[in-house]
Amino acid sequence: MVAPVRVIPNAAKRATSLLRTIQYTHPPSCPCHSNPGYHKAPPSIVPRAREAGRRRYATPTSVNQELKEYAFEMAASSIRFGPGVTQEVGMDFKNMGAKKVCVVTDPTVDKLDAMRQVREGLTREGISFEVFSNVRIEPKDSSIKEAIDWVRPYQPDAFLAVGGGSVMDTAKLMNLYLNYPDADFLDFVNAPLGKGRPVDKPLHPLIAVPTTAGTGSETTGTAIFDLVSKRAKTGVAHRNLKPTLGICDPINTRTMPAAVKASSGLDVLCHSLESWTAIPYHERTPRPPNPIMRPAYQGANPISDVFSFHALRRTVKYLPRAVKDPDDFEAQSEMLLAATLAGVGFGNAGVHLCHGMSYPISGQNPGYRHAGYEVAAPLIPHGVSVAVSAPAVFRFTAASNPQRHLEAAEAFGVDTSNVKLESAGEVLAEALTKFLADLGDQPAGLKDLGFGNEHIDALVEGTIPQARVLMLAPGLDKELQTEKEQLRGLFEDAMSH
Amino acid sequence: MVAPVRVIPNAAKRATSLLRTIQYTHPPSCPCHSNPGYHKAPPSIVPRAREAGRRRYATPTSVNQELKEYAFEMAASSIRFGPGVTQEVGMDFKNMGAKKVCVVTDPTVDKLDAMRQVREGLTREGISFEVFSNVRIEPKDSSIKEAIDWVRPYQPDAFLAVGGGSVMDTAKLMNLYLNYPDADFLDFVNAPLGKGRPVDKPLHPLIAVPTTAGTGSETTGTAIFDLVSKRAKTGVAHRNLKPTLGICDPINTRTMPAAVKASSGLDVLCHSLESWTAIPYHERTPRPPNPIMRPAYQGANPISDVFSFHALRRTVKYLPRAVKDPDDFEAQSEMLLAATLAGVGFGNAGVHLCHGMSYPISGQNPGYRHAGYEVAAPLIPHGVSVAVSAPAVFRFTAASNPQRHLEAAEAFGVDTSNVKLESAGEVLAEALTKFLADLGDQPAGLKDLGFGNEHIDALVEGTIPQARVLMLAPGLDKELQTEKEQLRGLFEDAMSH
Repeated sequence: MVAPVRVIPNAAKRATSLLRTIQYTHPPSCPCHSNPGYHKAPPSIVPRAREAGRRRYATPTSVNQELKEYAFEMAASSIRFGPGVTQEVGMDFKNMGAKKVCVVTDPTVDKLDAMRQVREGLTREGISFEVFSNVRIEPKDSSIKEAIDWVRPYQPDAFLAVGGGSVMDTAKLMNLYLNYPDADFLDFVNAPLGKGRPVDKPLHPLIAVPTTAGTGSETTGTAIFDLVSKRAKTGVAHRNLKPTLGICDPINTRTMPAAVKASSGLDVLCHSLESWTAIPYHERTPRPPNPIMRPAYQGANPISDVFSFHALRRTVKYLPRAVKDPDDFEAQSEMLLAATLAGVGFGNAGVHLCHGMSYPISGQNPGYRHAGYEVAAPLIPHGVSVAVSAPAVFRFTAASNPQRHLEAAEAFGVDTSNVKLESAGEVLAEALTKFLADLGDQPAGLKDLGFGNEHIDALVEGTIPQARVLMLAPGLDKELQTEKEQLRGLFEDAMSH
Repeated sequence: MVAPVRVIPNAAKRATSLLRTIQYTHPPSCPCHSNPGYHKAPPSIVPRAREAGRRRYATPTSVNQELKEYAFEMAASSIRFGPGVTQEVGMDFKNMGAKKVCVVTDPTVDKLDAMRQVREGLTREGISFEVFSNVRIEPKDSSIKEAIDWVRPYQPDAFLAVGGGSVMDTAKLMNLYLNYPDADFLDFVNAPLGKGRPVDKPLHPLIAVPTTAGTGSETTGTAIFDLVSKRAKTGVAHRNLKPTLGICDPINTRTMPAAVKASSGLDVLCHSLESWTAIPYHERTPRPPNPIMRPAYQGANPISDVFSFHALRRTVKYLPRAVKDPDDFEAQSEMLLAATLAGVGFGNAGVHLCHGMSYPISGQNPGYRHAGYEVAAPLIPHGVSVAVSAPAVFRFTAASNPQRHLEAAEAFGVDTSNVKLESAGEVLAEALTKFLADLGDQPAGLKDLGFGNEHIDALVEGTIPQARVLMLAPGLDKELQTEKEQLRGLFEDAMSH
């Protein structure tokens, strides 16, 4: 049954067209940006969608693969920011009436002052808690499952994550599967690797205390891990997964070594740039039949833009200072704030090619060991694997929206007043190359990581499963073979910058 | 018992001093901005505070009136924005498992298309609901109490507010007192008029659908009403009062007459400017002993700044267009977005003198009827009563932070490259005066509203109870007689611009 259209057609038509005009006054982008249906969409529903496409507004219950999105939704965790604010966390749990708190951390952070404050704060308020300190850095599905198995018998009524992205993401998934005891692990994992089931009820309260300035996971509904059997980085993404509160205490990020500050900061840089340049939300398909199906990664929108661009400017200004001077607490504090702001931006708009390509880059590491990381095995830190392709990526995406790429170049201090629109990609790529070189200790392309042309096929194949982020990449074709050719070109261009 | 200090003293000291440096690099503001203790603070606790002040960090359980704030907290409702998005609201309640929804509106909005869509959407999803359509515009404590009495026997498990600020604020208070059946009405009302009790548990879900582009109430934890016995505008303000979701559908604001668009838009303008110029959060006292006591109106902070300034620029650009051309849907949509963004800004930073002075201005109206408002009794619309003092207010506050006032003038298109810092207030006041004159149909000062010097004593006395916003006014003295003299000067200056 089809419900009647709810708005005056003319008003609706004007509404849609004018709203698009508001935010995106640059020349209309190429139709393939919308990736209609994308190559992963089940083809069986296309005929129904085509029929529904004749109506101006989709009725709420219709499935419509062709209608583009008409709305965006911004959701973010509450954020508390201040030096020393970790000391308040016990009171927060008491205020919310929590009785049993599952504290999640990793073996390194467990020894730091942040965890000491957490233990003392909870004890002072008389809150019962248990610490799970076995989070694996760069979690795998197996490590997540171990954490879930650990928490089920404990049955906490609240969670506290103290650490970097790996810790916060593991805590989110422990919370999720504790609340869905009968769910299969793949039920909530992003399609196409998992079933992409929405999180349709509130979870237990989760407070996140980041100890790195990078992932922004304290504000997002995203949790990332390696799905080993598929050789892919994937995760779960839904608004209901986001922490209740992110407690951002710049004293907790002081312990990061310079190399970690650099790598984490490059993650922030790419979160900002990718969400700022992602396809606009109104070019995304399909229009969700129910608001609960509206993805967290929905494309750039007027509110995410404010966060993304602001975070970009702060990162460009403060990251070099934070890396160079371990005593520059102002720059470190600003980077924590930038990471959080970028988290709100990309948490609602998404990331695209740098992140999509980074997963095979770090996963297929030919043996590179990043300077400053004292680890036993070869390692390409996440931020490094993301930033290494950035000049190539934005050279590629600039055609979709040159004005926006020029504005990004301006954030790097480039005077773009005499730059032609067709040079926007080149100018931004140059600014990025210089920024990476000035930061120091960064690979000048994939060659420096040990990759050669012989690795490109595997890198392309490893990128394809990242459909969730690739669908937000402007300029990427929806046809699989063309998309692979484009990715091949991107990896070739990223060999050296 | 005093818990030990939780951070290394040197790190803490540097943290505090450096963090302050980060955000506010302009010359240090005058000590009175912090309004230490304010003139409403109970003097009895000062000795204890003084003792505690010797410690670097307040212990969480200590009461400390002298230590300044060291953290800020940003909280905002989720926001969904799009033309036609009202149609989704039934699904939202179904998704959250709501069984009985209390729909709150006013007699005018009850007849509009927004309410028709709401009724149909809820019916389509099989959600039981009752409509309370008797919200009073500019609610009084008595009208709020009537609404509370109405909802108690119904015992809904969710709320839906469809209307302007009066409707949304009434719905928030219905939700609050439904969840605290034993509370006295004044328990939660802002001090000093009420007891300022914090909302210490989650309330029922509340979805807000604004039909004006003004209050931003869809994103804030604030509810305002007239406390008739005290002849004061006051309210309840706490993060837990904020809607779960604001559904911003620009089609719903099309029905506003031009005069309402102008007045609502001036409210947005002042929300932006006042929150942008409020005292910085780290100058506010007291430092709360428990995070639940941290006020929503906490002073300007690096995240509220992003929202406030962005909303200011959009309002300056789009409000004149929205008022002049009823068919300019782009400008109307932008104003709804600006209202929401300003709501996030002032909802976390606060407003100050324009709002504090507006309450006696509208309450003591000598008989002014604003053009375009077809009402029986004399009326100074809220936005008009707020904006009429704006040139005088920012001329007064500029000395506290001239750089910030110059940036605001730049948002109005003023070239400030050759303006001296000491002229910042004058330049911003001129820009505001011109903006108001160009908008049309606005009073050029209090004289145009019928006020004369003989009214000033009463206006000053009517402003003093607005402690919650006055404490955020930069430059206002904490000593009562001096403050009254300053307010007198402000009202005199606001007589004509």
